[in-house]
Amino acid sequence: MQLGLGFWESKTFLSAVELGLFTELAKGPRDCESLRAQLGLHSRSARDFFDALVSLGMLQRNNDEYANTSESDLFLDRSKSSYIGGILEMCNARLYGFWGNLTTGLKSGEPQNEVKQGEDFFAKIYAEPTRLKQFLCAMTGLSMGAAKALALQFPWANYKSFVDAGGAQGCVPVQIALAHSHLIGGNFDLPVVGPIFEEYVQSFGLGQRLSFYPGDFFKDSLPSADVIIMGHILQNWGLEEKRQLIAKAYAALPKGGALIVWEAIIDDQRQQSTFSLLMSLNMLIETQTGFDFTGADCSAWMRDVGFKETRVEPLCGPDSMVVGIK
Amino acid sequence: MQLGLGFWESKTFLSAVELGLFTELAKGPRDCESLRAQLGLHSRSARDFFDALVSLGMLQRNNDEYANTSESDLFLDRSKSSYIGGILEMCNARLYGFWGNLTTGLKSGEPQNEVKQGEDFFAKIYAEPTRLKQFLCAMTGLSMGAAKALALQFPWANYKSFVDAGGAQGCVPVQIALAHSHLIGGNFDLPVVGPIFEEYVQSFGLGQRLSFYPGDFFKDSLPSADVIIMGHILQNWGLEEKRQLIAKAYAALPKGGALIVWEAIIDDQRQQSTFSLLMSLNMLIETQTGFDFTGADCSAWMRDVGFKETRVEPLCGPDSMVVGIK
Repeated sequence: MQLGLGFWESKTFLSAVELGLFTELAKGPRDCESLRAQLGLHSRSARDFFDALVSLGMLQRNNDEYANTSESDLFLDRSKSSYIGGILEMCNARLYGFWGNLTTGLKSGEPQNEVKQGEDFFAKIYAEPTRLKQFLCAMTGLSMGAAKALALQFPWANYKSFVDAGGAQGCVPVQIALAHSHLIGGNFDLPVVGPIFEEYVQSFGLGQRLSFYPGDFFKDSLPSADVIIMGHILQNWGLEEKRQLIAKAYAALPKGGALIVWEAIIDDQRQQSTFSLLMSLNMLIETQTGFDFTGADCSAWMRDVGFKETRVEPLCGPDSMVVGIK
Repeated sequence: MQLGLGFWESKTFLSAVELGLFTELAKGPRDCESLRAQLGLHSRSARDFFDALVSLGMLQRNNDEYANTSESDLFLDRSKSSYIGGILEMCNARLYGFWGNLTTGLKSGEPQNEVKQGEDFFAKIYAEPTRLKQFLCAMTGLSMGAAKALALQFPWANYKSFVDAGGAQGCVPVQIALAHSHLIGGNFDLPVVGPIFEEYVQSFGLGQRLSFYPGDFFKDSLPSADVIIMGHILQNWGLEEKRQLIAKAYAALPKGGALIVWEAIIDDQRQQSTFSLLMSLNMLIETQTGFDFTGADCSAWMRDVGFKETRVEPLCGPDSMVVGIK
């Protein structure tokens, strides 16, 4: 029953993010009536809503005043750069509803997002710089934990340069460059991403060491570098495209160079990685052919195109990296 | 993120119930391809779907064959009388979608179910005997744990008779009568419920001791009995109706008689009862004025109409009972 009714707590939290509740409380604690009025809620269920969030550990209540927890204050206040609620806003506005058609997707194998109405959500986002920047910011929030782990764990001392293929706002390149001053790096992404990446990189003073390479990884070759990174990329595509992208990375690497594929990798037994398996169902909802995969799957694809060694290492949360050495 | 994306696992499980996956596997284990074909699923995501259910603990996989766990076999096989999936089917078909409008409900204080389209889901169910029986069966599944606890915990030896007000199929009266042969009891519910209750009671051979009292608890008096029970009733109504129903119970009891109100009671600090607080939001989605309440709230309403003593006792899962002695 808890699993079947799990959408209650999930949607309650998503509505709180949508309403900007945590952003409001970041300004200071408020009593029930004042918080209710500020958010424009009806008196009928406001207290139940706030107390449900207390019971879920997302809010605190002291002396009848509601306040953020330290985590919700850091990660869910829109006015902080550490905000990661963008992805939750997208879940609330889009994915919650689309997942309502999961059964249809499972029966047809077809995506269940805006594509059904003839729209292409991602094309629309990439066509509009302001929305694109919001989206890329949300992706940065989602990638930060893995980016820091990747900067720390990989033996960067053995390499001089890297390119992040589909690096979006530049979360991973920036974290790696901050941690390793001997490296130069880049982001290979669609031209429209360029200014958003440059702005982000400048804000860290890394403009001298991180460059933007405009291109389309299905049409163009990847720039050469000692290490090529693909994070949250392969999951979006079918088996053929996955193999094609891995082959492109192989072609761009020198002998001894490394490809790092990182995302929510499924455990080889396909027994424990709930998040990764559900992410694969999310790829059904959102893409034409995408799916998630195990470390063994990815290692095999790497070896098929010529990589000599492969290894799988956990990064952060559900994310792992599969490393292939040419 | 886990909380915000919790709807993924919830909906995945609800789709499995909808598709009759557990009913199919109750006939015996199946490999991926055979299970996929039987359920009419596309090959794209079937394996991810099944393995996600394995990782969630709802299925087992041995030697590449999927099988029910002992729990999913007992509770989620439609062909067993222990099936409790009816309520999950209703969540999948109705509540998942309606909860998508939680924010609108919080702002307006208005229900977000069929009422918005001018339909009355519950009136429709009660108008059609086959659907009503399915619905009442689902309610029985949901009440069974609390019914067994109530039969065991309450000092029934001190009483001779009871009436369950809004007793539906008769889950609670039957469990109490089975456990205590000295008791006679009844179910006071809408006339249309009568035949469904009688059939259920007969199946336990309890027709001599359990009677049906047709009526509407807002229009009619309650039948007299030593103990009156209201389970999952008060939550559906606003404060005035709650008080009115408690007063009716008081009127129908002898001195020393007991009213038992049981449902998902909120803890007095409104700090820990996530399920009960979310159930109260579900009452926002489903009813005009309903809400859940603490044991202290209910005790106060009882004392206001004359009950001398009250106490709160946990039953099973999120359910507790509030007992008032006249």
